Amino acid sequence: MMIKTLYWKDNSAYILNQLLLPGRVTYLRCRTVKDVYRAIRDMAVRGAPAIGVAAAFGMAIAAIEKDFKSLAAMKAWLSRAAQFLGSSRPTAVNLSWALKRMSAVADAQFSGVDALRRALIAESKKIYDEDIIINRAIGDNGARLLKKDSVVITHCNAGALATAGYGTALGVIRSAFKQGKIKYVLVDETRPYLQGARLTAWELMKERIPYKLITDNMAGYLMKTCNVNAVIVGADRIAANGDTANKIGTYSLSILAKHHGIPLYVAAPTSTIDIHTPDGDGIVIEERSAKEVLCVNKIFIAPKTSEVRHPAFDVTPAGLIRAIITEKGVFAPSGITKPAERE
Amino acid sequence: MMIKTLYWKDNSAYILNQLLLPGRVTYLRCRTVKDVYRAIRDMAVRGAPAIGVAAAFGMAIAAIEKDFKSLAAMKAWLSRAAQFLGSSRPTAVNLSWALKRMSAVADAQFSGVDALRRALIAESKKIYDEDIIINRAIGDNGARLLKKDSVVITHCNAGALATAGYGTALGVIRSAFKQGKIKYVLVDETRPYLQGARLTAWELMKERIPYKLITDNMAGYLMKTCNVNAVIVGADRIAANGDTANKIGTYSLSILAKHHGIPLYVAAPTSTIDIHTPDGDGIVIEERSAKEVLCVNKIFIAPKTSEVRHPAFDVTPAGLIRAIITEKGVFAPSGITKPAERE
Repeated sequence: MMIKTLYWKDNSAYILNQLLLPGRVTYLRCRTVKDVYRAIRDMAVRGAPAIGVAAAFGMAIAAIEKDFKSLAAMKAWLSRAAQFLGSSRPTAVNLSWALKRMSAVADAQFSGVDALRRALIAESKKIYDEDIIINRAIGDNGARLLKKDSVVITHCNAGALATAGYGTALGVIRSAFKQGKIKYVLVDETRPYLQGARLTAWELMKERIPYKLITDNMAGYLMKTCNVNAVIVGADRIAANGDTANKIGTYSLSILAKHHGIPLYVAAPTSTIDIHTPDGDGIVIEERSAKEVLCVNKIFIAPKTSEVRHPAFDVTPAGLIRAIITEKGVFAPSGITKPAERE
Repeated sequence: MMIKTLYWKDNSAYILNQLLLPGRVTYLRCRTVKDVYRAIRDMAVRGAPAIGVAAAFGMAIAAIEKDFKSLAAMKAWLSRAAQFLGSSRPTAVNLSWALKRMSAVADAQFSGVDALRRALIAESKKIYDEDIIINRAIGDNGARLLKKDSVVITHCNAGALATAGYGTALGVIRSAFKQGKIKYVLVDETRPYLQGARLTAWELMKERIPYKLITDNMAGYLMKTCNVNAVIVGADRIAANGDTANKIGTYSLSILAKHHGIPLYVAAPTSTIDIHTPDGDGIVIEERSAKEVLCVNKIFIAPKTSEVRHPAFDVTPAGLIRAIITEKGVFAPSGITKPAERE
């Protein structure tokens, strides 16, 4: 039984508070757009596809949190809500992708407030349902790339917890494991937020997929000494040329993988492809607070006054990516706009 | 005023408990060989040169902790003490180097127990004093390699705290800073023990040398975006061909540096050179406990039952090292046995 990352119930979005995992499993009930905005900004929900679904739920909530006097007033509010939700985090393109889909519904013609409400709720649920189906397709497409008894490195959490369910990079690992293709997974702990240690290790433990937790700085040494077969990561935004923004550390991994002749695969839904950004230079990298680096479990691990760099993401150039695994198939990074154009 | 890593007073070795830094500055008073063994094994004192000095003090303590009935009985005990201290940690060669120097004294001819005691105490103090002089020479030799306003990455702590004082890699940075050659230092936090965050950041703060703390997985991205001029690290053991064991993560850094055309320098005393080990394959890499990865400040950051890899060191091949900075000059890794042979 897979844990639910988020779900819709009683006109609210219930969002698993991932900041408390693996210690505590608690859900935030979001009844306002502001609640959803905060859940995304503070990283209670994270992972590009999950952020997209949360934003879709946010728009459904926008449609019901107020009594609107007219359809025009409602549409004006929805437009502001979309802009507000879109400002919660800058890097994951799934956020704006989901908001665009919801806004397209909001911009269509409706007989009244209630009809638009129903349509927005239905569209958000559709985005949710589709995400799980898409992830299973990514998993199956990716599993074909792995051979029996593979040792795989993954970074951050691109699992069920980063999506509506199943996961992208971890979806590939789930599908491959069912086919006897996973010997074990090396899990980068992924400082500073420790998504690997807190979330990926937890998911793998629950699924009884063998894993070994490592600190991020061990990846090179283990590539050299452990017969690693592949590195599989998720993505927050894929530029038109295949350059990929993902959790900080992915770029380093890609260089280490190249040095050791190990393929690095990016697993992501086509909604992560941003055809309007020509290459990685155009991707905004979010710089988060110093405190998130300086504190672990609210305790300082370094002098409090330390200056800190905290880019939350980095960009891996297309040339260091062997292939991008999507729900529509496996593509060379240079050919990645094709699935997006097909839509 | 530099903090003392360890010192000799009242027939005891006082060892700064680095596990409690930067929060608390407390010293362990070591009166027995076992006390010193534990301080090394548990990493209250760490850093190859500091471990060497601690072991030398351990031999001086061995000479005074018992009442010996004969010189022969004393020498037999000293031999056992050397073996015991040598088993505290496997990777740093300075440990066996210092024990060999102390054992050479123990094996010489003396008129009686007291004379040997005095000689061992004197030799340990000499090793201590020499270490500081050697570090200053390393610092001056290394500073010549840097140009004005350099941005430098360092890993772990190869500072005053890793030595009797001044530091090796951080000694180079100290000397270079005095010459206006350091714009700022990027400090890898160095999981799992966080020697960068806890120790290096603390030393740099005290010396008012500008630094920015980063998580280990940021190094690649910052090499690409921050005009990094050099990577400078310490060493725990340098094989005869120049392959160098150092804190886990150094190997990854060396590959990232090569990819970005940034020189990586190793700064270490010649006592770190192990001419009896032909290359890196012969260096024993210590694997430490899972708990040290799973817990930060005694709180679990991952499922408690997680399998973990915890190599404490890795080996950087000579080909990825631009030069090795010693007290006797700067050497190409392939020529590193020359200063050792000169001794």
